[in-house]
Amino acid sequence: MYKLRILSVGKTKEDWLEIAIAEYLKRLQSSTIIEFVFVKNDEQLEALVEKEEAVVCLDSTGQMMTSEKFSSFLIKQLETNGSRLAFVIGGAEGLPPNLKKKYPLISFSPMTFTHQIIRLILVEQIYRAIEIDKGSRYHK
Amino acid sequence: MYKLRILSVGKTKEDWLEIAIAEYLKRLQSSTIIEFVFVKNDEQLEALVEKEEAVVCLDSTGQMMTSEKFSSFLIKQLETNGSRLAFVIGGAEGLPPNLKKKYPLISFSPMTFTHQIIRLILVEQIYRAIEIDKGSRYHK
Repeated sequence: MYKLRILSVGKTKEDWLEIAIAEYLKRLQSSTIIEFVFVKNDEQLEALVEKEEAVVCLDSTGQMMTSEKFSSFLIKQLETNGSRLAFVIGGAEGLPPNLKKKYPLISFSPMTFTHQIIRLILVEQIYRAIEIDKGSRYHK
Repeated sequence: MYKLRILSVGKTKEDWLEIAIAEYLKRLQSSTIIEFVFVKNDEQLEALVEKEEAVVCLDSTGQMMTSEKFSSFLIKQLETNGSRLAFVIGGAEGLPPNLKKKYPLISFSPMTFTHQIIRLILVEQIYRAIEIDKGSRYHK
């Protein structure tokens, strides 16, 4: 079982986002658990990230990759780190500089997205990555 | 008033997507009308696109740009084309080759997204583009 955590600053409780994400969590439940952790500010975020063994940060300056590449990247991270990985999404001001220096950075797009849309994309790409690894038809 | 159309193959009626998109349409209503047109297949899509004066297609091979660049691009297209523009989203097999050759292509990401998520990103980026052009604080 893969155990992923998504750490982010500032909780937003849009109903549509909860519904959309719940659909992917349900589809993932046989292989993967995703836990969402919300913190109030950068200090809390950094303190929490410290405790994680394996961390990947989402940042606009990060590496962009195809979904296939993200799949290999994710599976490799999970295999190297005992099936655990934490993703970090920064606040409105972006990721704290300490985290930027310390961890691998990935980016979905040169465009700026809302935090809600980033959360949705991340969960869908995690689901897609696992389906690609399984060789399912979802990604076709 | 800007008048945009989003032409796409295959209607999907996810409730969460309707709710999320409705929020942006409401915010846009003082400056922009977005009409969604759904067709069943590529032939219908091509026939419909033929009737449009100004067309931009979303395609994974298209040009990627920042939200600021997309804002300038969109506003320029609207100014050149009497405040009208049609965006085209291809079906599961991608965009018909005829359309790929004929129109400007833009891409949001090297990743593959679902059609639902593409529609959401497009509408949010249109809203963001117009806010950037207005100089509002939304994009900050």
